Amino acid sequence: MQELKASKEITVRFSEVDSMNIVWHGSYSLYFEDARTAFGEQYGLGYLDIFSQGYYVPLVDLSFNYKQPLLFGNKARVDIVFKNTETAKLIFHYEIHLVDDERLIATGKSTQVFLDRDYRLVWTHPPFYEEWKKKHHLI
Amino acid sequence: MQELKASKEITVRFSEVDSMNIVWHGSYSLYFEDARTAFGEQYGLGYLDIFSQGYYVPLVDLSFNYKQPLLFGNKARVDIVFKNTETAKLIFHYEIHLVDDERLIATGKSTQVFLDRDYRLVWTHPPFYEEWKKKHHLI
Amino acid sequence: MQELKASKEITVRFSEVDSMNIVWHGSYSLYFEDARTAFGEQYGLGYLDIFSQGYYVPLVDLSFNYKQPLLFGNKARVDIVFKNTETAKLIFHYEIHLVDDERLIATGKSTQVFLDRDYRLVWTHPPFYEEWKKKHHLI
Amino acid sequence: MQELKASKEITVRFSEVDSMNIVWHGSYSLYFEDARTAFGEQYGLGYLDIFSQGYYVPLVDLSFNYKQPLLFGNKARVDIVFKNTETAKLIFHYEIHLVDDERLIATGKSTQVFLDRDYRLVWTHPPFYEEWKKKHHLI
Repeated sequence: MQELKASKEITVRFSEVDSMNIVWHGSYSLYFEDARTAFGEQYGLGYLDIFSQGYYVPLVDLSFNYKQPLLFGNKARVDIVFKNTETAKLIFHYEIHLVDDERLIATGKSTQVFLDRDYRLVWTHPPFYEEWKKKHHLI
Repeated sequence: MQELKASKEITVRFSEVDSMNIVWHGSYSLYFEDARTAFGEQYGLGYLDIFSQGYYVPLVDLSFNYKQPLLFGNKARVDIVFKNTETAKLIFHYEIHLVDDERLIATGKSTQVFLDRDYRLVWTHPPFYEEWKKKHHLI
Repeated sequence: MQELKASKEITVRFSEVDSMNIVWHGSYSLYFEDARTAFGEQYGLGYLDIFSQGYYVPLVDLSFNYKQPLLFGNKARVDIVFKNTETAKLIFHYEIHLVDDERLIATGKSTQVFLDRDYRLVWTHPPFYEEWKKKHHLI
Repeated sequence: MQELKASKEITVRFSEVDSMNIVWHGSYSLYFEDARTAFGEQYGLGYLDIFSQGYYVPLVDLSFNYKQPLLFGNKARVDIVFKNTETAKLIFHYEIHLVDDERLIATGKSTQVFLDRDYRLVWTHPPFYEEWKKKHHLI
């Protein structure tokens, strides 16, 4: 089965660095979101695509494992992998590597669920998502 | 004429401190917004009050003068003063002082305009704002 | 054995709310950090206390479970519990509840390790931390 | 006389958009800082260059004029221009334009001063800055 992947290069901003001269851990939420955005653009599953179909996809789980610090000016690559599942969820795995030497900086996971316009949880694949999965040979 | 004022105490968060060990300048946008929220609550002119009347009040001007640095753990007080004007604008002046010794940390100004639900600029006082001004003896 | 706990009340800022009108998931990093700061102040284990002893305590793991959304203006209480462990780590569990009705908003965990001034991992309890644990009847 | 300019393209992140679906005004601090970083890289006047010479350059003034909103996914270009002055200050002017149609989104200014390692204000051009100016035909 096909594995859907995307990558996003980021450069550490001065404002993302804390008083220990390393990237504040909370900024990794931004990096993962940048990667989800890149994935969405590449495969036609962006926030606005989903929203236009009548759904929200809020995060329900998010986790980070910090291996090495990121410093101001560092260039890093966030790799995102779609984890196929039969439940009506979007599950992504992440790895952040330094561009220079491929050193592993952090890993992580996220899970999103589908809510309809009335913020009710959707238990089965929304039709547009079923289509999307078929198109990408995931079902 | 009456001058409308409010104050908001803030404590510097670790995440707001940059690699020079001082508060990143961009965080002052948060502090001023906290002060506007406190003002809105005290005088019944909060974002949600305004929104429920059918208006948005985006910022069109914002400026900061940084006098002294804020450090992690500092407690500061943001004073906000409503500057009455005949035009359909919300103008606020700000001063941030250390709670400990009243040292002046920063000053600033902001200007907001009224947009209607279709994001069109409103040139005259919206009725609810006219009422609000009368109630507070500003016209 | 004694369980060390602290709590921190937070009010959702306008800037923390995203385009779905709910708190952006990344802002929970701030809330957990606010809780760690409150814990540190209450029990004498703040960032600056630790730093003055010659150590950093960067996060190595951080996870969030989002149960219910937080909205602009919501007041919530972040409860933090110290999880005692024999390894040289700081482990905290978190729960965020709405102040109004005690509804559970989110849970989470974090793990921090000790680094010395040369950023080397410290495998055993630093002396000051050993003292701190004794003082609080954790060993 | 030569005018030193740089440009930085940015893409609006989901986390930078507020509940009115537009970029929160405070995020422009990030965009201007991105532009200063790009300028510093292009002309050898980055934060780290300055710091390695023994100086800090904190902001003392910062102002924004918001003309048009930025939306999620918009691509914009931040243009930054160095404003030469005889005083020991770094003054920059900024313009943000949409990449698509060159629409003007915002303008702004910033002023930075030089502090030495003891955080004392430096009233005359630091030697390295004098050199930098000569190299770029600014004096």
